Amino acid sequence: MTHSATAKTPLRLGLAGLGTVGMGVVKIIQEKADLLALRAGRPVVISAVAARSKGKDRGYDLSGYGWEDDPVKLAQREDVDIFVELMGGSDGPAKAATEAALALGKDVVTANKALLAHHGQALAELAESNDAVLRFEAAVAGGIPVMKALTEGLAGNGITRVIGVMNGTCNYILTRMEATGQGYNALFDECARLGYLEADPQLDVGGIDAGHKLSLLASVAFGTQVSFGAVELEGIERISNDDIAHAADMGYKIKLLGVTQMSARGLEQRMTPCLVPQTSPLGQLDGGTNMVVLEGDEVGQIVLRGAGAGMGPTASAVMSDIMDIARGTRLTTFGQPAASLIKATPAVAATPASYYLRLALVDKPGSMAKITTALGDSGVSIDRMRQYGQDEDPKIAPVLIVTDPVSREALDSAIAAMETTGVLASPAVAIRIEQL
Amino acid sequence: MTHSATAKTPLRLGLAGLGTVGMGVVKIIQEKADLLALRAGRPVVISAVAARSKGKDRGYDLSGYGWEDDPVKLAQREDVDIFVELMGGSDGPAKAATEAALALGKDVVTANKALLAHHGQALAELAESNDAVLRFEAAVAGGIPVMKALTEGLAGNGITRVIGVMNGTCNYILTRMEATGQGYNALFDECARLGYLEADPQLDVGGIDAGHKLSLLASVAFGTQVSFGAVELEGIERISNDDIAHAADMGYKIKLLGVTQMSARGLEQRMTPCLVPQTSPLGQLDGGTNMVVLEGDEVGQIVLRGAGAGMGPTASAVMSDIMDIARGTRLTTFGQPAASLIKATPAVAATPASYYLRLALVDKPGSMAKITTALGDSGVSIDRMRQYGQDEDPKIAPVLIVTDPVSREALDSAIAAMETTGVLASPAVAIRIEQL
Repeated sequence: MTHSATAKTPLRLGLAGLGTVGMGVVKIIQEKADLLALRAGRPVVISAVAARSKGKDRGYDLSGYGWEDDPVKLAQREDVDIFVELMGGSDGPAKAATEAALALGKDVVTANKALLAHHGQALAELAESNDAVLRFEAAVAGGIPVMKALTEGLAGNGITRVIGVMNGTCNYILTRMEATGQGYNALFDECARLGYLEADPQLDVGGIDAGHKLSLLASVAFGTQVSFGAVELEGIERISNDDIAHAADMGYKIKLLGVTQMSARGLEQRMTPCLVPQTSPLGQLDGGTNMVVLEGDEVGQIVLRGAGAGMGPTASAVMSDIMDIARGTRLTTFGQPAASLIKATPAVAATPASYYLRLALVDKPGSMAKITTALGDSGVSIDRMRQYGQDEDPKIAPVLIVTDPVSREALDSAIAAMETTGVLASPAVAIRIEQL
Repeated sequence: MTHSATAKTPLRLGLAGLGTVGMGVVKIIQEKADLLALRAGRPVVISAVAARSKGKDRGYDLSGYGWEDDPVKLAQREDVDIFVELMGGSDGPAKAATEAALALGKDVVTANKALLAHHGQALAELAESNDAVLRFEAAVAGGIPVMKALTEGLAGNGITRVIGVMNGTCNYILTRMEATGQGYNALFDECARLGYLEADPQLDVGGIDAGHKLSLLASVAFGTQVSFGAVELEGIERISNDDIAHAADMGYKIKLLGVTQMSARGLEQRMTPCLVPQTSPLGQLDGGTNMVVLEGDEVGQIVLRGAGAGMGPTASAVMSDIMDIARGTRLTTFGQPAASLIKATPAVAATPASYYLRLALVDKPGSMAKITTALGDSGVSIDRMRQYGQDEDPKIAPVLIVTDPVSREALDSAIAAMETTGVLASPAVAIRIEQL
């Protein structure tokens, strides 16, 4: 048992990065020392830290810790058992220091989704060949223990699909667009003012950050090598208030939705705007909260919801990995040996789905016939359709269509055919409806 | 690493109980042998089984397994590494066989909430003194990996409160009462016909089964010895359709809600009908699904939702524990050494709350003054009040009151005072409103 033989040996951390998350970890380790020791069966202590600016007052006493300017040096210190990487960045010092720790057989805990999304396979192989553990709970969905739920809690399941809202900023913008009627640009500016956006906003609104997370979930879910490059990415920039209102009219909400599933054609990974039923748990998710739905062939749907970012929640997830290691738990990085992970064939939108189509129809005789013929000729059938009145001149009638489930190829071919008819006043908008 | 040194040593199970859950485990182990071996780094096999009736056709081939009529003999077999207890019952063979396995240092995985609720402390001590592991994910909230989330995922948090809907049958009855207007008795009969009720229905509708689960969550959350006897228990029998309708009128749903929290006065454990806001995740939970909300001082609220019962979901939870052990994870039963768990002082409804009061007021001059005086004299202030019209004779006016937060003692004293005034046509109904 973890609390007998090694009961008194402290677990010693080297903490690289003293930003919000790093200081959240320092706070927990200082304030909850007794509780952590009781739960882990041994003390959990910080030996040394590394950050860019040594002198800065960070609100907690760091004078008892060693200091390294170079995170690689920190990772290599004799008095460091676990290297805790909270610097960020897919390359550079974060990668170098992580590799240095693993090469020496030291365990690594990281919150760095970009690092894992780009180098997960190589790092997992390096960890396992050195009998080291590499864990990343905090990299996916903040405080929600979703990697643990998927890798361990659902270990007896074949995973059929993982779906999630994993970027709080995007969900906040979409929720506020609906609640206030403000447009995307105004809310983007508001988020910038409130500090909700990454230094490169495309990481948020372009879906890149959430795409990183999805690629890590996909690897564990399907036993595949992380392949962030194969994630179909589309941000929320083109979502209009009209789309949000029309979707609501038809019983849906628009979410930046991550979906991964394995089909006969290969591994699908999408991080794109989708419609979900208003009454589903994902449809009811407002504001900056995250939600991940895990679907297993035995357990059915497990829904997990919580804070996706912030000091306390992210530090809580980092501590989950640290406490596992302190308790003697030693798992592979992606739920099975890295060498056994397969290279999946990427499949773009292989699973048929219903789509929401918004068309701006030039209001003249025969327009609707041309549209419906184009759809029919491509094998796309219509589940529901609404045409709205239009008084202005030139008369352009908004038409909404919900299709029956159809392949993306058939839909694209229908849209291409519609666009050659000359009755569309602007390009068609198509948004996938994800069934829940 | 789990996949290196011991890679080829199979983990051998002895499975006691071949009912729905037991056969769910057999199914997974037979159908997913390769996947489990890949994830665990070693094969997971069944050596032998025990059940009451040997000859019965259960739909899967059991001929390759040893058979024991006596589960104690099964637990003691040389070829059994983990004893998997899926028989049920708080005493008798389940307890005897679990003790037999632990005494020999064999690990035990169980789905038996009654066993743990009544004997958890003694069994955890027995396990830990024999360097054995005793795990019970399937005992709480079916397929939801909630014990794992709490014990491991939130290990860096002080837990402030755990709230849950953990009996699907009760939630189904309450949901159907609202949707159909049918009364409690009719829906109880429907559940009996559909096979939704335990052999002793009080386990469901009396809240006992859910109370067992709550006592296990409380132990891990607050580092206390399991004390099921201290759980305040109240079933759903007295909930009327009027209460459900009136609660909805005021923005609430009625749920059989488990709540545990630690206050200065001691450990609160309640499994009682409560009102929750309609728009909260718990308020939106319809039908037979379970939901547990974990509140940590770092992570905030984590909401977990999934199937609380059934073959696949429960077997999935059993497999989670088995796979942990197969992967070499060795944790204490309740998240810290059993010997360090404290005996908590029970505190009944120590935390102040708002209450919903339903009064049947004899409609004559001065009635309302007597009621409001009784409330005021006990220090209970009124947040909202509604009086409904009443045409029949004798005139009895339904009055609904939502109080400001108040201690249960003050409320009880106000109710006692109201009942001496002679203006109540029937006893007052008081239901706690749980803030989320």
